[in-house]
Amino acid sequence: MSATKEQIVAFMAAEFPQTKCVVESVDDKGAVLSHDIGIDELRPGGTVSGPVLMSVADVAIYVAILGRIGIGPLTVTTSLTINFLRKPSSEARIIAECTLIKVGRTLIVGEVSLYSEGSSDMVAHVVGTYSVPPKRI
Amino acid sequence: MSATKEQIVAFMAAEFPQTKCVVESVDDKGAVLSHDIGIDELRPGGTVSGPVLMSVADVAIYVAILGRIGIGPLTVTTSLTINFLRKPSSEARIIAECTLIKVGRTLIVGEVSLYSEGSSDMVAHVVGTYSVPPKRI
Amino acid sequence: MSATKEQIVAFMAAEFPQTKCVVESVDDKGAVLSHDIGIDELRPGGTVSGPVLMSVADVAIYVAILGRIGIGPLTVTTSLTINFLRKPSSEARIIAECTLIKVGRTLIVGEVSLYSEGSSDMVAHVVGTYSVPPKRI
Amino acid sequence: MSATKEQIVAFMAAEFPQTKCVVESVDDKGAVLSHDIGIDELRPGGTVSGPVLMSVADVAIYVAILGRIGIGPLTVTTSLTINFLRKPSSEARIIAECTLIKVGRTLIVGEVSLYSEGSSDMVAHVVGTYSVPPKRI
Repeated sequence: MSATKEQIVAFMAAEFPQTKCVVESVDDKGAVLSHDIGIDELRPGGTVSGPVLMSVADVAIYVAILGRIGIGPLTVTTSLTINFLRKPSSEARIIAECTLIKVGRTLIVGEVSLYSEGSSDMVAHVVGTYSVPPKRI
Repeated sequence: MSATKEQIVAFMAAEFPQTKCVVESVDDKGAVLSHDIGIDELRPGGTVSGPVLMSVADVAIYVAILGRIGIGPLTVTTSLTINFLRKPSSEARIIAECTLIKVGRTLIVGEVSLYSEGSSDMVAHVVGTYSVPPKRI
Repeated sequence: MSATKEQIVAFMAAEFPQTKCVVESVDDKGAVLSHDIGIDELRPGGTVSGPVLMSVADVAIYVAILGRIGIGPLTVTTSLTINFLRKPSSEARIIAECTLIKVGRTLIVGEVSLYSEGSSDMVAHVVGTYSVPPKRI
Repeated sequence: MSATKEQIVAFMAAEFPQTKCVVESVDDKGAVLSHDIGIDELRPGGTVSGPVLMSVADVAIYVAILGRIGIGPLTVTTSLTINFLRKPSSEARIIAECTLIKVGRTLIVGEVSLYSEGSSDMVAHVVGTYSVPPKRI
């Protein structure tokens, strides 16, 4: 019932054409995404915008869920908690590593560690919960 | 030490020209902001994008803090928890009502209720914490 | 389908005899609870223990849910976020005011403001989500 | 400036004699704690009480902080987010594995994975933030 990386990339391109997230890898345990950082993602002072980090984490969990339960069900985010830990680099891509920590019948929980590419210091940490619609198609 | 709505609007226009948030009111207890919803804020299916809601809430707390402690200190978001409650209207502005629930020396906490304009049903709820730099300018 | 205060008090006494929470009021919008503070609830330095505050908030949301959807369904806490805002008094009861901000078919979200009795300064703020089992009895 | 496991165990026994948490290991990156489960920790139905899980996670982060910055400073919890993932066993100890993900000058963030001993399925996940007083002793 899970989806392959190729299926997910095609689905995301069709349904969420506006996202700049790139799926680096995905399996039934989690996903790794990257996101370029440019003028659109930066705030005065060279800080990566907080909403960009939240958005990348949100998409990372969404992709990991597709990798686990397949493309049919349209899960929706029900809650998201982000802790901002360090100032990300303004010159490196953001890397989001998502692990699914619960895959229930109605609720899925994912955890995401966000990094500036090339650094092992986490810049932000996210926990997100997603609701699975009662009847899967 | 607090700032007026006019000072804050001028500051936001200069420092965060990319935000589409409009400051409706602000005092030392909180702030009300609005944000237009158009093609950029919508996802397939007519849903207002989650990161847009997070972003409006984040700016609402930031503005409320300016209203309370003035424009000097550059506070930064340290954490944010959002609960998505209902699907917002695709045709109404988003209204964010922020109340500061703690204003400490190093940490400020704000709570935000988000609505689709014209409805009293909360579409999302946010709690955000902001760090105040040790030495205020 | 909702339950009265008397029904809820009887239910709590039977099912959760260990809780020291007192139901002050409850209707279909929310609930107010109180909790005595004594030697068991204090830490060295006269601080009310954090887990006591979390526990009171958790029970307050649970009671509010009973007031709304009735005693049948056994909801379970799925997530809880607490922000500690001020040191509570060591000599006043804790008052928890819960408002339900979403009552969905599978997910219920409540918000709780915690006070030391007699003070209007919030000592802690909680948002909790509860899962409603698919088939209500 | 860090503290050894022995120093921390002695400090906890003196300052928090009521806690039933056992420090299994601690270094400057994190800590592992355990907590017996008995009649006091269980709710009707054999569920481990949510506040017990929150409390163990809270202590685990506190101990990890002592292991990193030493025993002097009295850090206080400023926020805690818990996601309940699975029903813990009523017959196994709770194991809490804490990793510090940010150690700043004024704010420390820890992440905790909670398990029933002998199982690799996470029963709950916690992120907690702690405030460090401005002047360390």
